[in-house]
Amino acid sequence: MKLIRFGEAGKEKPGIQLKNDERIDVSKFGEDFDEKFFETGGLDRLRQWLDKNADDSPRISKDTRLGPPLKRPSKLVCVGLNYEKHAEESGADIPKEPVLFFKSTTAITGPNDSVTIPKGSKKTDWEVELAIVIGKKASYVEEKDAQDYIAGYVLHNDVSEREFQGERGGQWCKGKGCDTFAPLGPFIATKDEIKDPNNLKLWLELNGERLQDSTTADFIFKVEEVVSYISKFMTLLPGDVISTGTPSGVGLGLKPPKYLKPGDIMELGIDGLGTSKQEAVAYK
Amino acid sequence: MKLIRFGEAGKEKPGIQLKNDERIDVSKFGEDFDEKFFETGGLDRLRQWLDKNADDSPRISKDTRLGPPLKRPSKLVCVGLNYEKHAEESGADIPKEPVLFFKSTTAITGPNDSVTIPKGSKKTDWEVELAIVIGKKASYVEEKDAQDYIAGYVLHNDVSEREFQGERGGQWCKGKGCDTFAPLGPFIATKDEIKDPNNLKLWLELNGERLQDSTTADFIFKVEEVVSYISKFMTLLPGDVISTGTPSGVGLGLKPPKYLKPGDIMELGIDGLGTSKQEAVAYK
Repeated sequence: MKLIRFGEAGKEKPGIQLKNDERIDVSKFGEDFDEKFFETGGLDRLRQWLDKNADDSPRISKDTRLGPPLKRPSKLVCVGLNYEKHAEESGADIPKEPVLFFKSTTAITGPNDSVTIPKGSKKTDWEVELAIVIGKKASYVEEKDAQDYIAGYVLHNDVSEREFQGERGGQWCKGKGCDTFAPLGPFIATKDEIKDPNNLKLWLELNGERLQDSTTADFIFKVEEVVSYISKFMTLLPGDVISTGTPSGVGLGLKPPKYLKPGDIMELGIDGLGTSKQEAVAYK
Repeated sequence: MKLIRFGEAGKEKPGIQLKNDERIDVSKFGEDFDEKFFETGGLDRLRQWLDKNADDSPRISKDTRLGPPLKRPSKLVCVGLNYEKHAEESGADIPKEPVLFFKSTTAITGPNDSVTIPKGSKKTDWEVELAIVIGKKASYVEEKDAQDYIAGYVLHNDVSEREFQGERGGQWCKGKGCDTFAPLGPFIATKDEIKDPNNLKLWLELNGERLQDSTTADFIFKVEEVVSYISKFMTLLPGDVISTGTPSGVGLGLKPPKYLKPGDIMELGIDGLGTSKQEAVAYK
């Protein structure tokens, strides 16, 4: 099942992308894709509802805006430096255990919305990432059980301002949580759709040039390790999002480094999770 | 006005602490203290409602559990090293601009709830802090206007696991966001109650021994600077909480360092914001 949300920003309605890629409005199901939905078996309820109602649900036109495919989660936790080549291009050591940071949830935006280059930014950068959506409250979960706590997966561009992140004193969050810095979607694929999350191709193109081209088979810490690890530092709630890190090919790692300017187009994708496309725009 | 929430964890009801320290149930007001409440002028609505209804509202018994005095915010942003002596005792340089980090909002708990020492923790530490509650959506706010975006203030114990924070690779969030690591309250004092947030005494006692004893007059970055600064990296939403850093006297800074063990009692307070008291307990 592929969950989408569509319509005006902040007023999105829930929908489903069908196997034939048609998108339908499931507002009549009566629930948004939020913590309560995931916590209370909403995916099963929605499947049953769709068996009876999918055919009669309104179709959504192709040009309708997609929003982030879930309502604001309690947190957006990210893993840093989870691919060896990206750690190298960042000038960092290969981590011995996952590096964690938060993105502000106010950074979350639709998959094809513009990405705003913040005021004064010179180093806004891209990062294609596989993100995990948590399906069940997770605390001190073992790696072998981690899959039970996953609802699905979603494509994420972990947009990052490198000067804010690394040159403004202290922690990374200054460069990670700016508004529009977390395009999520087009859809959440429930985990039954993704055969092996640790073996998915992922890529990002800037103005048509492929700069990131890798596979999650190169993860240092696999999806199950990451969920288990984070759950030992904090409780993960249903609907929480974990982003698993980016492969090499970010602007910071190019020689010379290259950063976003207004009008640049990022297009990115992951096997089975669709593609997204954002235009970089100046702060107005 | 002093906002409280009371009752069973996760099912708290809104209340008010009156000038005579009596606490009343304001469930009939019909709103919880959440983003929508702060965003839509809830404080004014509540003031008007109280004028008519305070006398007839049910009194709450003294032994009723207090919850965090606001519903889960979108974020809990913290300033690190905002007092010179604390930077010194932490072995850190005096920051040139505010150091920021996030605490997971799942860490938020009531002011007198137990603080759980995480599994495997040897270095769980205390930090009395003044926290700001945002009243209005804030993006690129100037320092001179920052007060317009503040709803009130609240006492916060920024409990921190020093090994997780500094010795487990990467960012501080591992040691800051553990469950129960953010006791908030007893109440939010609306800003009209606090004459000068940059001149408040604050203190913390461990088992009756006063270990932190300072004043927010020693801030490196004042309340208004902090709000303005953060708003240039991310939009602050109504109900968001900003914690402004701790003065010297944390366990990490003692010689030799000293950390929480089960049964230890932390008691803390800030002028005009009441006191809170937490027992450290082992993870069960």
